[in-house]
Amino acid sequence: MFFRQRQMAYHAKPEKPDPLFAKMLQEPLGGQWGEISVMMTYLFQGWNCRGPQKYKDMIMDIGTEEIGHVEMLATMIARLLETSPIEQQEDMAKNSVVGAVMGGARVEDAIVAGMNAQHYIVAGLGARPSDSVGNPWTSAYTIASGNLLADFRFNVTAESQGRLQVARLYNMTNDPGVRDMLSYLIARDTMHQNQWLAAIRELEEDGLEMTPVPSNFPQELEKGEVAYQFLNHSEGTESQQGRWAQGPSPDGKGTFTYVDRPPAFTEDEGNLNPVDPRTYGTPPAPVPPAAAE
Amino acid sequence: MFFRQRQMAYHAKPEKPDPLFAKMLQEPLGGQWGEISVMMTYLFQGWNCRGPQKYKDMIMDIGTEEIGHVEMLATMIARLLETSPIEQQEDMAKNSVVGAVMGGARVEDAIVAGMNAQHYIVAGLGARPSDSVGNPWTSAYTIASGNLLADFRFNVTAESQGRLQVARLYNMTNDPGVRDMLSYLIARDTMHQNQWLAAIRELEEDGLEMTPVPSNFPQELEKGEVAYQFLNHSEGTESQQGRWAQGPSPDGKGTFTYVDRPPAFTEDEGNLNPVDPRTYGTPPAPVPPAAAE
Amino acid sequence: MFFRQRQMAYHAKPEKPDPLFAKMLQEPLGGQWGEISVMMTYLFQGWNCRGPQKYKDMIMDIGTEEIGHVEMLATMIARLLETSPIEQQEDMAKNSVVGAVMGGARVEDAIVAGMNAQHYIVAGLGARPSDSVGNPWTSAYTIASGNLLADFRFNVTAESQGRLQVARLYNMTNDPGVRDMLSYLIARDTMHQNQWLAAIRELEEDGLEMTPVPSNFPQELEKGEVAYQFLNHSEGTESQQGRWAQGPSPDGKGTFTYVDRPPAFTEDEGNLNPVDPRTYGTPPAPVPPAAAE
Amino acid sequence: MFFRQRQMAYHAKPEKPDPLFAKMLQEPLGGQWGEISVMMTYLFQGWNCRGPQKYKDMIMDIGTEEIGHVEMLATMIARLLETSPIEQQEDMAKNSVVGAVMGGARVEDAIVAGMNAQHYIVAGLGARPSDSVGNPWTSAYTIASGNLLADFRFNVTAESQGRLQVARLYNMTNDPGVRDMLSYLIARDTMHQNQWLAAIRELEEDGLEMTPVPSNFPQELEKGEVAYQFLNHSEGTESQQGRWAQGPSPDGKGTFTYVDRPPAFTEDEGNLNPVDPRTYGTPPAPVPPAAAE
Amino acid sequence: MFFRQRQMAYHAKPEKPDPLFAKMLQEPLGGQWGEISVMMTYLFQGWNCRGPQKYKDMIMDIGTEEIGHVEMLATMIARLLETSPIEQQEDMAKNSVVGAVMGGARVEDAIVAGMNAQHYIVAGLGARPSDSVGNPWTSAYTIASGNLLADFRFNVTAESQGRLQVARLYNMTNDPGVRDMLSYLIARDTMHQNQWLAAIRELEEDGLEMTPVPSNFPQELEKGEVAYQFLNHSEGTESQQGRWAQGPSPDGKGTFTYVDRPPAFTEDEGNLNPVDPRTYGTPPAPVPPAAAE
Amino acid sequence: MFFRQRQMAYHAKPEKPDPLFAKMLQEPLGGQWGEISVMMTYLFQGWNCRGPQKYKDMIMDIGTEEIGHVEMLATMIARLLETSPIEQQEDMAKNSVVGAVMGGARVEDAIVAGMNAQHYIVAGLGARPSDSVGNPWTSAYTIASGNLLADFRFNVTAESQGRLQVARLYNMTNDPGVRDMLSYLIARDTMHQNQWLAAIRELEEDGLEMTPVPSNFPQELEKGEVAYQFLNHSEGTESQQGRWAQGPSPDGKGTFTYVDRPPAFTEDEGNLNPVDPRTYGTPPAPVPPAAAE
Ligand SMILES: [Ca+2]
Ligand SMILES: [Ca+2]
Ligand SMILES: [Ca+2]
Ligand SMILES: [Ca+2]
Ligand SMILES: [Ca+2]
Ligand SMILES: [Ca+2]
Repeated sequence: MFFRQRQMAYHAKPEKPDPLFAKMLQEPLGGQWGEISVMMTYLFQGWNCRGPQKYKDMIMDIGTEEIGHVEMLATMIARLLETSPIEQQEDMAKNSVVGAVMGGARVEDAIVAGMNAQHYIVAGLGARPSDSVGNPWTSAYTIASGNLLADFRFNVTAESQGRLQVARLYNMTNDPGVRDMLSYLIARDTMHQNQWLAAIRELEEDGLEMTPVPSNFPQELEKGEVAYQFLNHSEGTESQQGRWAQGPSPDGKGTFTYVDRPPAFTEDEGNLNPVDPRTYGTPPAPVPPAAAE
Repeated sequence: MFFRQRQMAYHAKPEKPDPLFAKMLQEPLGGQWGEISVMMTYLFQGWNCRGPQKYKDMIMDIGTEEIGHVEMLATMIARLLETSPIEQQEDMAKNSVVGAVMGGARVEDAIVAGMNAQHYIVAGLGARPSDSVGNPWTSAYTIASGNLLADFRFNVTAESQGRLQVARLYNMTNDPGVRDMLSYLIARDTMHQNQWLAAIRELEEDGLEMTPVPSNFPQELEKGEVAYQFLNHSEGTESQQGRWAQGPSPDGKGTFTYVDRPPAFTEDEGNLNPVDPRTYGTPPAPVPPAAAE
Repeated sequence: MFFRQRQMAYHAKPEKPDPLFAKMLQEPLGGQWGEISVMMTYLFQGWNCRGPQKYKDMIMDIGTEEIGHVEMLATMIARLLETSPIEQQEDMAKNSVVGAVMGGARVEDAIVAGMNAQHYIVAGLGARPSDSVGNPWTSAYTIASGNLLADFRFNVTAESQGRLQVARLYNMTNDPGVRDMLSYLIARDTMHQNQWLAAIRELEEDGLEMTPVPSNFPQELEKGEVAYQFLNHSEGTESQQGRWAQGPSPDGKGTFTYVDRPPAFTEDEGNLNPVDPRTYGTPPAPVPPAAAE
Repeated sequence: MFFRQRQMAYHAKPEKPDPLFAKMLQEPLGGQWGEISVMMTYLFQGWNCRGPQKYKDMIMDIGTEEIGHVEMLATMIARLLETSPIEQQEDMAKNSVVGAVMGGARVEDAIVAGMNAQHYIVAGLGARPSDSVGNPWTSAYTIASGNLLADFRFNVTAESQGRLQVARLYNMTNDPGVRDMLSYLIARDTMHQNQWLAAIRELEEDGLEMTPVPSNFPQELEKGEVAYQFLNHSEGTESQQGRWAQGPSPDGKGTFTYVDRPPAFTEDEGNLNPVDPRTYGTPPAPVPPAAAE
Repeated sequence: MFFRQRQMAYHAKPEKPDPLFAKMLQEPLGGQWGEISVMMTYLFQGWNCRGPQKYKDMIMDIGTEEIGHVEMLATMIARLLETSPIEQQEDMAKNSVVGAVMGGARVEDAIVAGMNAQHYIVAGLGARPSDSVGNPWTSAYTIASGNLLADFRFNVTAESQGRLQVARLYNMTNDPGVRDMLSYLIARDTMHQNQWLAAIRELEEDGLEMTPVPSNFPQELEKGEVAYQFLNHSEGTESQQGRWAQGPSPDGKGTFTYVDRPPAFTEDEGNLNPVDPRTYGTPPAPVPPAAAE
Repeated sequence: MFFRQRQMAYHAKPEKPDPLFAKMLQEPLGGQWGEISVMMTYLFQGWNCRGPQKYKDMIMDIGTEEIGHVEMLATMIARLLETSPIEQQEDMAKNSVVGAVMGGARVEDAIVAGMNAQHYIVAGLGARPSDSVGNPWTSAYTIASGNLLADFRFNVTAESQGRLQVARLYNMTNDPGVRDMLSYLIARDTMHQNQWLAAIRELEEDGLEMTPVPSNFPQELEKGEVAYQFLNHSEGTESQQGRWAQGPSPDGKGTFTYVDRPPAFTEDEGNLNPVDPRTYGTPPAPVPPAAAE
């Protein structure tokens, strides 16, 4: 059960409107690596958690925090849109240089063409639950497998991709209010990358999971001879130069070897047998017409 | 530029048909964490790579290997479907117990209801580029950000989720041929988890990237005071018990602190200003009708 | 900013596992008219609200309540899955009648075929953010236009479709624990239908919006002669018998008339002009090859 | 069975081409609340209707009318695209001011960047079945539940959102031909809002359905004590000021009450039981490796 | 502008309900190659047509016919669902053999598990605009390029894939009413395959378009030396045995040649240059942290 | 099993960066008719092929070639993005005319607004697996039915739509390096259109398949009287003028006839029966509340 406090977690106030940056800021709100994704991912991981209580509680903490991040971004975007295109059009129409260049006739298009058209037409100058090119957010971005190591690895990724995108956006604006909010989100992503890395160590120290995931699958059932081989599938051998091709493997259970031209394990060329002709696929040789009775 | 060898990488031959397991095996073929996903992810990471050659070559090697994994799974699924439902219907019709139970009339439905209907109707008993519940594969599953640490973390995740799913499937069949192929894929996932973990260490040792990603964003620009704080957003303090709430952070740059009831940093409640009434949103007070001239 | 209380809003405990009902219960969780949809819809309506504070506060109240409904359903589904298919297989294998019918060989398939395969393979017996046939939830289900009357009408719809679906599901189970939770959700949908209907009246009484939405578009700019005409586009005149074809219109601004065979307002047949041949569409007559220089 | 008349329902002729407005006009054609959505929604509601004939006939009338609206918009968009970018490039290249600004080299990009690229590349200057940011139309926008009150409430919403969007677009163009067509669509939306509101009253007067939907679910089976309570889930009590928090409920069956800090109905914190370890989720305590035999 | 006749184009009456076949019959209704796809494809091709009137009229004729095919399938599906699962449950419960097998407890699940759950929960026993595994129809299935030869080739494909799927479904039912309707759809697909093949010949005879499409692109601008070469990219030379590897090409403009081991045309290995470090991708060598000012 | 050669199949080097053309070039990479689509379509057709070996080998050859086309386009796009928006901003800021027009403040927006925002934010100046308006590629674009004639018809279409799009793009750039690569892709599409047309003839000559597809469905089971009728569904008779309305049909098995006003074959108006009231759809007359016990 959830409750809401009136204040936002942090400031979300731009110095001035900027509909074009509003479009870009949709990416950390409703994009694949945006705040809706981490909010939903952490909430589902928490609700589905069957592990120790400290993990469930920790996951729910961060999941709940992320709802507030969604709130901050949605508010910021709505404020970046606060001057409507119609007003901008009127302002710009007074600008003679622009008027001359654009022919004096369809000035509003120059602005609107660059906007996310749905910000105006669909949301009436509000935030959208979509990414920077307009794709709706999809729950395919929500990852919750029941295996906490597999999922915490995803979470480290999400906070890495997320911090990367916000850092890029930081470079695309010089609005002090926007940058202030981004500096908060970037700092929280620093924390969250560290938090999930720490949680991975905790899981291993608690003996609950380790590499290779899932560690409870009996490793003697896998095809052992290829479990630590690097297979070179392209010309050139630069790939031999990394630590992935020699020395002990990170799981401490094997030694990497390098196979320059990997052989096939089978003579099977993948040819298929014919099936019932009433499925009407193309057979190896002509067959007479037939249907089920 | 790519070339194909006739033999498959490994055996892909079931002992006998099993259309229901064919449906489930679509998950590691065309699901979010299936072979098409890693094939496309690694190929795009390689093509977009601007880092040292040894990384690009290594990424392309594994990307090319994964095309062969897609091939093995597609072939296996087509073979698991080789006895058509029509033939099974006829076989089952001769089984009097089934006939009695089902009423003697619509026996084929019992089989077909459990199948992926598109295996028969759309693909004519071939594999589909979709997951186990029929969702088409989407390139949203392809991750290539240009930042290799962010992406290698994704790759570790992908091989973890993938190995987890295949291990679960191993438990759902007792066909020796199917299990043999799965034991190969599980072993390769062991290798690939280790490979990406090794590549992460190499990246750090090469000084190219470290935590927090992206490490080239000047950390003094982030809101430092919240960069290592654990914020407790739910009742209870079990979340205080993990190493994510105290001690040095994994990046070696901070010390975790635990904030029991995190304060808001602002008095701002997120209220928005009115906008041009010609956008027809609901205003704070009634306004007269208007349209642009 | 949001906080979480440990207790759920209501009981979510089934008497016994039921993986097939778990599949169906995904619809009110992650389907088009499920709890994720109303949660996200109300939160976005609230964040984007530019109207009076009482509306914004009310919308945020219900949006926050819905997060708790998502929580209850996710928990219920995870519990309905608590006996794994493997255990069920072993139980059923002891049942000789089933064994005989199924041929004694692939009993687990009979159960698994009916399950949502991703409950097992992807989520490890946890809830999924998807609907009852496996489609991922999409933010296209989130509606927030900035116009509160347009949106409250959507909200009444959402609570109507939602209550309808849950009532149907009530009839498909006889588990007392499941039915208890459904009776709570159904009651809240009763409240929420009434709440949005009341909010619509309030909006009208506050003079903020009325029919036709948007009421601030000057109605003299619309093509008035067709604004209250019922146009009969199919054979038969049963459609003349309703109050939509005669008498005063609900907005109080017109009188319905019935047009039996509606005429076209134009002689224009929609034929198009040719365009630059370098777009390579099919022209009205042959043209010579050409390309831009 | 359907037939087509040569003339369109109304004029659809712009005064001059405008590829940027063509992009925006995709929203009422192929967007969530566009003409394809209402066409498909009404047709499916009609085909699935099991209620009285006057409803089915009325629904089919409007569904058939909407096909003609799709036709008008598609034609308008194709005409707005009639001057190709190549010609515009040549015209603009003669304009020295533009030439100077743009550097004289890549003038066409300035236009094409603002266009929907698929209008040119994919459709050869024709309309697309997509929205204003390029998302394909999806049948998730088609609503037909079998319950006419639930569906008519959706229909009122669709005509409200639709009229809202077209009114916004009216403000973004000053082409008399485009505005003329929009004034027709706006008027029909006025009619259709009224029509569905009238149909809702008719349903109630016919005794077929009322609030709460579905009215045929026995209301004594719902958890009555929460069926008319407003639950305050956020700080502040502005939400107490509306008619949704006090007085009789619109369905005439209850009285609203306001609960300031809603209690949980359960002590259950949603913790889950462990499951079969062969699903490889993270357990509460370490378990030995295992697989099905 | 469109009108509807009361009678359907053909009979659509099953002898008895069959919810499992109803699920499969969604494929030709709302699947990729179903009737909604051809309806929308032909209508958009017609509305966007800039070629001779006889083509536009012909395309609109078949587009309008297809609306009636959608109607027949939707009606058939609604009728196949007419006995509700609840009634079937009660009927089956009286059947002691079934009762014994199923354990007497959850009989309804056996039926419902095989059904499309949304037929009951979402549509109330009506048709859905989705395919046989529940994916919503998407306008990505609508093809209209402006080039009639490219599009007519698609149309031949659509009628081929469609007839193939319906023929497969014919074999999965023995209901005389269903088969009667399918025999009509199959016959119309025979006509439509022939119709589009004839239209292709007409286009060529009218000199409007020929192979290679688009024929108005000056062929001297393409890289002529590879325009008629078969490039062997896999081991083995069976592919040399077809008429695609030797002799005159079907367009009459070239002669096929077979290249056993195709060479690369370039020494370029696709390596990329470094970019501005403020994009935070991984560079070839370490760089100091930086951000835009 | 697949291997990669270092060199690309052809040159992929632009003369200079062009982020706006990079956006458009996503269409032939990740659009519906782009190289990923043909790559995946041909590979799946090959893996699922149950016909003669020469077909399977030929299909795999071209499928493998297409992987190299994806590679070329991804590389070209990454290179077109090589000057980052930040650098361009700095360059443009020095251009006083632009500075004056744009107001000197937000110059970067003018460029970024036209870019695909995800090229920068998500991919760090790399290629995306998406189309020109940002939709992710979906495996719904992959066609493999098991019937080679149905599929080869699709393949001819794909190479036609693909060549059409690339020819259009040729006209939108004057970069010699880009045009050189496009001239290669256009030539290969010429070959591939011819190749699939030749393969269709070969299939027919081998007696494996012919019109109407599937030819192995017994044609006497279709409703013969409508198998060669052209049904005129719209006003006007221009559609009578083509060879699709008279003379022998292309399959050589019938004679086209023209039906001016096609009659319905049934008096059935598609009305449905009532169903169990516990599904809560709207019935023909009021019923009392009820629920399953
Ligand atoms: Ca965050
Ligand atoms: Ca793999
Ligand atoms: Ca709810
Ligand atoms: Ca309309
Ligand atoms: Ca048809
Ligand atoms: Ca190609």
